[in-house]
Amino acid sequence: MSASSRPGLYVGLIHYPVVNKHGAEIASAVTNLDLHDISRAARTYGARGFYVVTPLEDQKTLVRRIVDHWVTGVGADYNPKRREALELIRVAHSLEDAADDIEQAEGRRPRTVATCARRFDRSVGFGRLRDAMNGPDPTLLLFGTAWGLSEAVIAGTDEVLAPVEGTDGYNHLSVRSAAGIILDRLMRQDH
Amino acid sequence: MSASSRPGLYVGLIHYPVVNKHGAEIASAVTNLDLHDISRAARTYGARGFYVVTPLEDQKTLVRRIVDHWVTGVGADYNPKRREALELIRVAHSLEDAADDIEQAEGRRPRTVATCARRFDRSVGFGRLRDAMNGPDPTLLLFGTAWGLSEAVIAGTDEVLAPVEGTDGYNHLSVRSAAGIILDRLMRQDH
Repeated sequence: MSASSRPGLYVGLIHYPVVNKHGAEIASAVTNLDLHDISRAARTYGARGFYVVTPLEDQKTLVRRIVDHWVTGVGADYNPKRREALELIRVAHSLEDAADDIEQAEGRRPRTVATCARRFDRSVGFGRLRDAMNGPDPTLLLFGTAWGLSEAVIAGTDEVLAPVEGTDGYNHLSVRSAAGIILDRLMRQDH
Repeated sequence: MSASSRPGLYVGLIHYPVVNKHGAEIASAVTNLDLHDISRAARTYGARGFYVVTPLEDQKTLVRRIVDHWVTGVGADYNPKRREALELIRVAHSLEDAADDIEQAEGRRPRTVATCARRFDRSVGFGRLRDAMNGPDPTLLLFGTAWGLSEAVIAGTDEVLAPVEGTDGYNHLSVRSAAGIILDRLMRQDH
């Protein structure tokens, strides 16, 4: 199946509910470079949309202001390649809203997939998720900001993806690096 | 050969000479998140050192201040995992100085490898570079900031690595994402 006829892949960057260093549930602030780096990776690997999920109105406004600058403002002329990436961004109030939006566009509800630095009993490997992505459902791949997705979000997803493991157990990538690596493992053509 | 008995892998982030949007040679400014994201990826994939290359004295001071905060300052207690990553950072005046330092530590001069979003006649694939890295020489993998490594730097390297290609030719990853993806492709254990 060619990449374009596959059901869509979508990326979600969750700012609530996520956990802080102590495991408490928080709403994190939007980081400018997360939007740039993850939208560029999403565009590189053919994702159809990048949902920035936050219930905070001031944070939604901030995301829209950044996107407008690069998509329709002076940034669009200055760097058209940046525009092509940032125009994938949609603001969503909640994970539920993002899934609704994808269902609207694709005609099928997306499989939600949590990414996490920890391994769970039900974690699936990259090969198995790649195979599932050739099925009829679109996929919404979720990344947590701060110290990661809350337990409640992880428990509510259809799948949990196995952690990216390096060479000796150190497993503290930034969300920007993790998103790039995971998209590469799932979507690169030359396996 | 186990990861630890392999000759060392080193990462170099070049701030001079790199090119700007118009292809002119410049010295770029250090970006805080480059240091964090790339050192965390370097640590994850077992790199033995991360050289931040800049000839500008104020930029060297900035790098040392950031590293000191996380390695010996209050950041070291706040986040020991961050310390483990940032203590890989060394400041180098030039690429030549970084290669000298590695030769001193490893007893052999490193193979220098340029990364670039463009393909060259002499570009080598990821599999071929992985094989070469099992040979006796250490490897210094070079990433350019701004719009990438200058032609002179690329021409002077031992190898040029093939570009990371996504699904449809869009090829504008951030240096932070590219570094994570390339380290994963070269160093992950479960191929």
